[in-house]
This record gives sequence, C-alpha cells and structure tokens, in this order.
Amino acid sequence: MKALRYENGRLGLAEVDKPRAEAGEAVVRVTLAGVCNTDLEIVRGYAGFAGTLGHEFVGVVESAADGRIVGRRVVGEINAGCGHCELCAGGDARHCPCRTVLGIVGRDGAFAEFLRLPIVNLLTVPDEIEDARAVFAEPLGAACGIMERVCITRDTRVAVIGDGKLGLLCAQVIKAQTAASVTLIGKHENKLNIAHARGIETVLVEELHQDSSRRKFDVVVEASGANGGFALAVELTRPRGTLVLKSTFHGRTEIDASRIVVDEISIVGSRCGRFAPALELLARNAVDVSSLITDEFPLADGVRAMARAQESGVLKVLLRP
Amino acid sequence: MKALRYENGRLGLAEVDKPRAEAGEAVVRVTLAGVCNTDLEIVRGYAGFAGTLGHEFVGVVESAADGRIVGRRVVGEINAGCGHCELCAGGDARHCPCRTVLGIVGRDGAFAEFLRLPIVNLLTVPDEIEDARAVFAEPLGAACGIMERVCITRDTRVAVIGDGKLGLLCAQVIKAQTAASVTLIGKHENKLNIAHARGIETVLVEELHQDSSRRKFDVVVEASGANGGFALAVELTRPRGTLVLKSTFHGRTEIDASRIVVDEISIVGSRCGRFAPALELLARNAVDVSSLITDEFPLADGVRAMARAQESGVLKVLLRP
Repeated sequence: MKALRYENGRLGLAEVDKPRAEAGEAVVRVTLAGVCNTDLEIVRGYAGFAGTLGHEFVGVVESAADGRIVGRRVVGEINAGCGHCELCAGGDARHCPCRTVLGIVGRDGAFAEFLRLPIVNLLTVPDEIEDARAVFAEPLGAACGIMERVCITRDTRVAVIGDGKLGLLCAQVIKAQTAASVTLIGKHENKLNIAHARGIETVLVEELHQDSSRRKFDVVVEASGANGGFALAVELTRPRGTLVLKSTFHGRTEIDASRIVVDEISIVGSRCGRFAPALELLARNAVDVSSLITDEFPLADGVRAMARAQESGVLKVLLRP
Repeated sequence: MKALRYENGRLGLAEVDKPRAEAGEAVVRVTLAGVCNTDLEIVRGYAGFAGTLGHEFVGVVESAADGRIVGRRVVGEINAGCGHCELCAGGDARHCPCRTVLGIVGRDGAFAEFLRLPIVNLLTVPDEIEDARAVFAEPLGAACGIMERVCITRDTRVAVIGDGKLGLLCAQVIKAQTAASVTLIGKHENKLNIAHARGIETVLVEELHQDSSRRKFDVVVEASGANGGFALAVELTRPRGTLVLKSTFHGRTEIDASRIVVDEISIVGSRCGRFAPALELLARNAVDVSSLITDEFPLADGVRAMARAQESGVLKVLLRP
C-alpha cells in the first residue's frame, strides 16, 4: 500500500506492507486524513519520529478480532497504551509510559491506505457527521482536553492566542462547551472572521497593543506556537490566572519566572483530549470546521500536500488515500 | 533613626527620619528582622527597588490611630493595598495592582529602627512565640501559601528542591499542614539534617541522580532558586503533576515547553502567604525554625550581615536594631 513516510531525514511516498492487526487491534482503511502542525514539526525533527506520518483520520474498519466492528465508520484516539499499567487499567492510555502514538511515537500513522489501532481506541462516527467533518475529531478532542485541565465557566474571561487551526478550534470549543466569553487574538482578519461568525470576539494583535485598557483574562490559551505567543499570553493573564500551553513548540522557550511567581500565574500543559465530546460537538453542529478546510490532495501527492500546509494563510489540508 | 538602605546602586547604613503613620497605619518599633534571599536579589537589581530593605520582622506597635494596638508585639503582612479595589475590598491586598510591598516595592522596609504598615496588616504574636521564632512568620506564611495554590493531602507525594532557608521551611510546613510524604532534595547534609529531624525524607542530589528507579512526584516545589533547579523539578514531576515555583529567580529561565505540554504538567507560581497559619504552626511548635538561625548582627552592622547571608552554608541571618 501507499504511505507518506518520514525516515532518514526525508519525507516521501513509499510502497509498504499493509499493516496486520496485533492482539486487540483493528485494521482501518483510511478514507480521509488531515495534516496537523505536529506533522510539520516532525519533519523538522520534533519527537525524533520515523515512519508513516499522520494522526488525524476517519476510516472504515477493514478487519478486527471483534467482528462486530468490521465495516463501521470510525475515528480513533491516537495514544495506544500497554494495557497493563495503572493508567491503562483506569481506561486512559494518554500518559502510559510505554505508549505508542499514531504517527508520532513508535507507531505508523494515518497518511496511508490502512492503519492499525487498538479496538478500544475506536469510536463509531454518527451518520450525520460526514467524513470531511469527522476528520477533525482529533484536534477537536485536543481542544476539549482544555476543559479537563482548567475549570472554565460562563463567568470566565478567556483569551485564545493564535488564529491558526488550533486556535480557531480551541476558541469555538471553549465557547460551545462553557458559554464563557472568549476573545480570539490573531494576525489575520480572514481567519478571525471564521470565529467571529460563531459569536466569538476577535482582536487583531496590533489592535491589542494599541488598547490602553490593558485587559486581563482569567484563562489564556497559547495556541499560536509562535515565538512571541508565550510572552503575550503571560502579559494577558491576570494575577492568579491560568495560562494553558496548547502548542507543542519545538525547542526551548524563555520564561520570566519571577513574573510567574509574583503574579502567581498557573501554566497548564494540555495535549490530547477524548474524542466523545468532539463527536458530540460535531453531531450538533456546535463548531464550524468546514470553513477551516483550505485544500485537499490525493495521498499520492502527499509531499505536495505537506508543502501546501506550510504556506502562509493555509489552514487545514486534507489527504485522501 | 538608623536604616539599612539600598539606593543609587549602593547598600549602606543611613540616618533617616522616623516614619510617620499615614491614615490607617501604625508605626512599629522593630525588635528583630531577618535577611531573606529576596533582599540579596534586590541588591543585585531585582525589582528595581530603592529604599530601606527588609520585610521579615517582629516588633512592638509604637503609635497608631487605633490606640488599642499600641504596645502590642506584632508581625506584619508585607503587601499594603490601595484599600479600594475589588481585591482589597475582599480582604486580600496581595495582588492589588497599586500595592506597595514592605522593603520590596515602593515602601521602606524593616531593616530600620521603625517601620510603618497598615494596621490591618498586623497580627499580634502569642506570648509563647519568642521574637527569634516570630521573625520567621513571613517566610513561614509564604510556605503556607503553597497550600492556597495546590491541593496537597496525606496521599500526595511531594518533593521540595533546595535545602536553603526556603526549602527547609516549605518541606516542614507542607509536612505539618498536610501529613503528606515529603522528600527534601538538597546538596548539604548538615542542612538536610534539620528537616530529617522532623521526619522528612531527605536525599542528596547526587544520590538522586544515581537512583535508577526514576521516582516521580505528584507535587514538586522548586525552592532552590538555582539554575538547574527548574529543570530538575520538571524531571521529577509526574505526568499531570504540579510544579510549584516558589523562588523568585532574577532573570529569565529556559523551559522545555513541549515537555510541559506532552506530560501535561502544571506550573504554579506561589509568592506570599497569610501569617495566621504561620503563627499557628509556631505556637504549637510544629516547625523547627530555631535551627535555621546561623548568625545575628546589630543593625549598625547591616552591611556585614548582608555579606554574611551570602556566604556558602549560611542559613538565616538576623538583624537587631
């Protein structure tokens, strides 16, 4: 089968064997996959991964030990645990120390005709969610994960920094799940408009700097991954407020630790979320993901798709095997 | 009166006017004061403070609009708020945006014969707490402040990094207030022994590095202020655990942000605490502060006292006006 792989420092399409399910796993035929910034980071050396890229997908179960799931349209949580440790026994493999992660750590990913995942990771997609929206389950789940880490209510003043894919999803999900007042801060009017149409206040960074009122927020989500994003987030967080680190920056970031101490700010890392709340948001059309799709390529043009995803102004690029 | 001042980049003893109480304030005759690392940092340029140093003290009220408090032996919380904002109205001036801070921000401090503070900041010292222990109310309160920011129970595995004054107090206070299992990590056997005598597990940093079990803690308190302290703290924090930043580092610290995100660590800044729980701990002798006193100087020898406080192996240096 065809697969888009990163190995020996090189990204390229390869012909590889179709995966075989190991115990407890299913083989899924990928019908649509999405390019995430993490994929771009991996090609820059993040996480030291080598193999088939991709962790955002929707597909159809091709084979599994449990026959009942065969033929179902599914999405799949990306952390595959050892199944034995305390965390896995508790039903959450996301921090299993021996985990593999689809297309990121020790497990071939979704930019291929087929992938394998533990059956327990798969969720059936409701019929009303078409593939082009279901493929957003992973990043939407990640946005939902913020609410696992921070208490946000309708009275919480929330700012999200970054009008890229992640920021647009985080802002919408927080608004939809908590009814909090959410302000999205970005650099691109056209991207901000996607959130604005969903009742989210939007501010251009340059306007923010002209604002003499020095607004402060209870919760600030750093979703820009940009160099200045973290410093801006600290600046916007009120004393005893919470800064959510959502972007996986590649490399090291400088922080003004005395500012964190003096203002008693909390910095909370947030990575993967659960897919069930993401599917629920998609089913009731509570978030607009369709406006985020910039382009689609056949898997055979995967290298071109990855290049396209890095272009300025581009949001989600999809890959169709 | 005599005062130890830092101004125009120079530390020195000066003869200055005795302070006059402003509305709502009392004048306190300082009987004993303590040198804190923050005082040493200020002399290195931290916080841009100029004036009389010192924020740890015990004294006797000399004069106040409310005569009932005159003659009382007191300690005093160091943040003086505007008295009007929402935070001050709520009884907590610690994050008042217009606050002054004794010997740190816009208010002359305790290394003097007299100081002034709002009457609401003062707490009467119970008779059973002699001056040489009461003078620890401020740093003990700061240690108590950790429990305002992080939930610690008897089941929480806590590590404290740094066997200096702050670390020794934090470890003891956490143990006394929560009955959690506390491990103090430091570089000096003689300092660690002070905590060990109070039932706290102690580990030398070099032993830690030889420990192949790679222990992880639910809560790690960085109280060393040393360059490597933060990186060690991250290393010791379990996934979804909490790292408490207690030291006010001067300058910037590099963090591995992707590690914070991937392991979903929370970093929580902690500054000042309330004095009431600190006095309660002192009254019931739940913490050993006396063993932390290395030396005492008359205020007239303040410059020498500050130099002494910077020497290796020295813990608390007291100043007696």
